[in-house]
Amino acid sequence: MHKSRLGALIIDCQVDDLETAAEFWSAALGGRADQGDPEGRYIEILGDGAEPRVILQRVEHPSRVHIDIETDDIPGEVARLERLGATVVEVMERWTVMQAPTGHRYCIVRARRDGFADKANPWD
Amino acid sequence: MHKSRLGALIIDCQVDDLETAAEFWSAALGGRADQGDPEGRYIEILGDGAEPRVILQRVEHPSRVHIDIETDDIPGEVARLERLGATVVEVMERWTVMQAPTGHRYCIVRARRDGFADKANPWD
Repeated sequence: MHKSRLGALIIDCQVDDLETAAEFWSAALGGRADQGDPEGRYIEILGDGAEPRVILQRVEHPSRVHIDIETDDIPGEVARLERLGATVVEVMERWTVMQAPTGHRYCIVRARRDGFADKANPWD
Repeated sequence: MHKSRLGALIIDCQVDDLETAAEFWSAALGGRADQGDPEGRYIEILGDGAEPRVILQRVEHPSRVHIDIETDDIPGEVARLERLGATVVEVMERWTVMQAPTGHRYCIVRARRDGFADKANPWD
């Protein structure tokens, strides 16, 4: 048995300066931008811990939004989603990129939100 | 004074049949697909009422994900976001489409999630 749920909304930003992007999005959504990582690739907009995380990611491709599904078993969750018709795009060290039958790309990541054990969906 | 917050994640699907799309996404995210509207343009994936809504929308443009910001004052919220650097793309009867400085399009809609009065962000 493993579990999964919507983990985060990733706001992929095709920008040089992610801090300026974070100023807009933290003000727009009413959260507080964290310090980000040393390479300036990620800044989280901290808000209500009960909701999916909101994370800005600096990217080279055009700006878009994608979903992260969090799980306690990445290979098990990937296999479950493949059975539903999704395909694996790329296996990274810490996450796997998949594509839905609807064409959306999304990532399978390790569970990091609060309350995962109680609130995530159990799968046989 | 008005309030706003992240209201929904809209999964725009470039598909002919939104019900098939909803079968995948409801299974992927562990929610229950509602009946949708008579025209087959929208199906909501019903989940935890404390989290942002997840709604599939049938669209003509390529599949993507966009954010809805919910508010009790659409013109006031649009003006606030314009001051932060966003621009108005289109004013519809029930919502306004905006574009962020990061290039993302998102919509300003009427508040519909539970707990808006208590949990949304207040703006002067």
